[in-house]
Amino acid sequence: MIRSIEWIGSGVRFIDQTKLPIEEVYVETDQLSVLAEAITSLKIRGAPALGVAAAYGIVLGVKNSVQSDRGRLEKDFERAAALIKTTRPTAVNLFWAVERMRGVLHRNQEYSVREIVGLLLLEAKAIHREDEEMCAAIGRFGNELVPQRAAILTHCNTGALATGGEGTAQAIITTAAAQGKNISVFADETRPLLQGARLTAWELQKHGIDVTLITDNTAAFVMKRKKIDLVVVGADRIAANGDTANKIGTYNVAIIAKEHDVPFYVAAPTSTIDSSLLNGEMIPIEERQANEVTEGFGKRTAPYDVRVFNPAFDVTPNEFISAIVTEHGIVRPPYVVSISEMMKNVLQIENPLGNV
Amino acid sequence: MIRSIEWIGSGVRFIDQTKLPIEEVYVETDQLSVLAEAITSLKIRGAPALGVAAAYGIVLGVKNSVQSDRGRLEKDFERAAALIKTTRPTAVNLFWAVERMRGVLHRNQEYSVREIVGLLLLEAKAIHREDEEMCAAIGRFGNELVPQRAAILTHCNTGALATGGEGTAQAIITTAAAQGKNISVFADETRPLLQGARLTAWELQKHGIDVTLITDNTAAFVMKRKKIDLVVVGADRIAANGDTANKIGTYNVAIIAKEHDVPFYVAAPTSTIDSSLLNGEMIPIEERQANEVTEGFGKRTAPYDVRVFNPAFDVTPNEFISAIVTEHGIVRPPYVVSISEMMKNVLQIENPLGNV
Repeated sequence: MIRSIEWIGSGVRFIDQTKLPIEEVYVETDQLSVLAEAITSLKIRGAPALGVAAAYGIVLGVKNSVQSDRGRLEKDFERAAALIKTTRPTAVNLFWAVERMRGVLHRNQEYSVREIVGLLLLEAKAIHREDEEMCAAIGRFGNELVPQRAAILTHCNTGALATGGEGTAQAIITTAAAQGKNISVFADETRPLLQGARLTAWELQKHGIDVTLITDNTAAFVMKRKKIDLVVVGADRIAANGDTANKIGTYNVAIIAKEHDVPFYVAAPTSTIDSSLLNGEMIPIEERQANEVTEGFGKRTAPYDVRVFNPAFDVTPNEFISAIVTEHGIVRPPYVVSISEMMKNVLQIENPLGNV
Repeated sequence: MIRSIEWIGSGVRFIDQTKLPIEEVYVETDQLSVLAEAITSLKIRGAPALGVAAAYGIVLGVKNSVQSDRGRLEKDFERAAALIKTTRPTAVNLFWAVERMRGVLHRNQEYSVREIVGLLLLEAKAIHREDEEMCAAIGRFGNELVPQRAAILTHCNTGALATGGEGTAQAIITTAAAQGKNISVFADETRPLLQGARLTAWELQKHGIDVTLITDNTAAFVMKRKKIDLVVVGADRIAANGDTANKIGTYNVAIIAKEHDVPFYVAAPTSTIDSSLLNGEMIPIEERQANEVTEGFGKRTAPYDVRVFNPAFDVTPNEFISAIVTEHGIVRPPYVVSISEMMKNVLQIENPLGNV
């Protein structure tokens, strides 16, 4: 099993994703600075994996405080938190994980510094374990949507490398294959950063799953000439009505799938759902640097002064989405009702006494 | 004006397209071997431009025969024809141009060798001029479809670099701009070979036309969030019913345009229409090497042993095509009728006495 990051006694071990798919290099460190640099330089990436890395990062940042007093612990915590937040300033999972760790610090004033550091490690491991369980549950629920013999098209990377577990959309693929279903996958290369070519193709090969790499341009031709049974993709943010922001090109695939009557599924944890956003128009879209497009392959491939429009995400309107698979089950249209129902139940499960 | 190739007194001058967009390098040669290597190595590319290059290549191959007899001329011609045909064995324009040049050789047995070489040069120039006129006519007819203020999305390269003139689809863009229309263009980069990024963006900048480069994945988001007035693309082969084979990804764009109610136009010479093919299913699709996808730009970006599906073209069914612009005018659905009508007229124009 591929593990993007794991705790190994006194530090973390992570796979350097920038070396993939050519080299499989693991880094072991007990230094927060090394981990922080790895996040900045995309050696570790993927929203859920970043949350796990941030939590372990806090532990690395405070572990020397055990020799000292609470003042030193708090100072170390804040220094670690500040460093982690500057690594990828738009990655909300980093912020979410840091705040959850801060809650442990604040709720346990009565314990010794050594005990609090122990509790912080337990919390980081809990964040990691919950992420694994989330992935497994998405895989289990999503597997119900996969026929016994299925050709699946996917976009970007949603696998173990992006999470603390088996992935989101990709967990559905690996779960179906592990159950003995006959699975073949077409992986969009996913320009500009080629996560499909570099990461998804590598992961699926590791799993022994039949995978064919295509350019994003080939998706329509594949759906026309070869039988595709379903498309499954991840999500970066889901609005209350089901509109889904995900890696640029996802909306292209959704339109093409609809034209060919191919079911189009989104798989994501409920933490991706932002009920404060009524629809996809309200989701902010990050625009990224031109050189991802103009010199993404180590060689300049466009005129030096050309204007580039390089949004990181697009928004797929809910009418293109056949179902959304979460760790709490599958929701179907109309999403404005089904998502709201599910989120009510989620809050009840997570806060059985109602003390939100 | 950009010229992909031109005759300069005793030889040809062509732009080395493999150096674009970083360097604008012109090569002058009177050696067929240099020209043939340029075709093989894609320094010269684009179906119509290849026809022009092949015709000039024949002239270069026979020009030394003027000192000799008809036997030598015929031998030189056949040697040149054979060399040209091996440069790009699937490029039909090469074959077509060579056969047209052979017609001149065979029809003029009564002339001296020197006179026949002169007639061959005249024929090559005629092929070139007809290509220029074809481009200009497509630009003129297509311009009627372009509003006074228009945002246009295009795919691949269909400009001066691909033809002996101003291009096909791109001639419509440059003609509209030359008439003072307010034109902005979104150019798909066009994976795997990035003709949009490398060539189209460069050409449109040369013309002073407002151009924005996008990944192919961004087309749907652009159509959703920014107003696109029309899409125009070229064609490699058009069946009798209007189904159109063109660069891979064209079908993606056509589906996305239809979803957003954006008119989708194909621009191509009538020589692209193959009336012997009833529909697009009958158009053979070339599959190209995996390394265009896995290491297209000097760097390996996918696992070494991954399977790749890399068709050079896809087929856009006629129901996605709002109109087809040719040098003889614009045809609209139902294409099975309108194309057949147009081709009857074309045959009458080109053979007024009916001696086909």
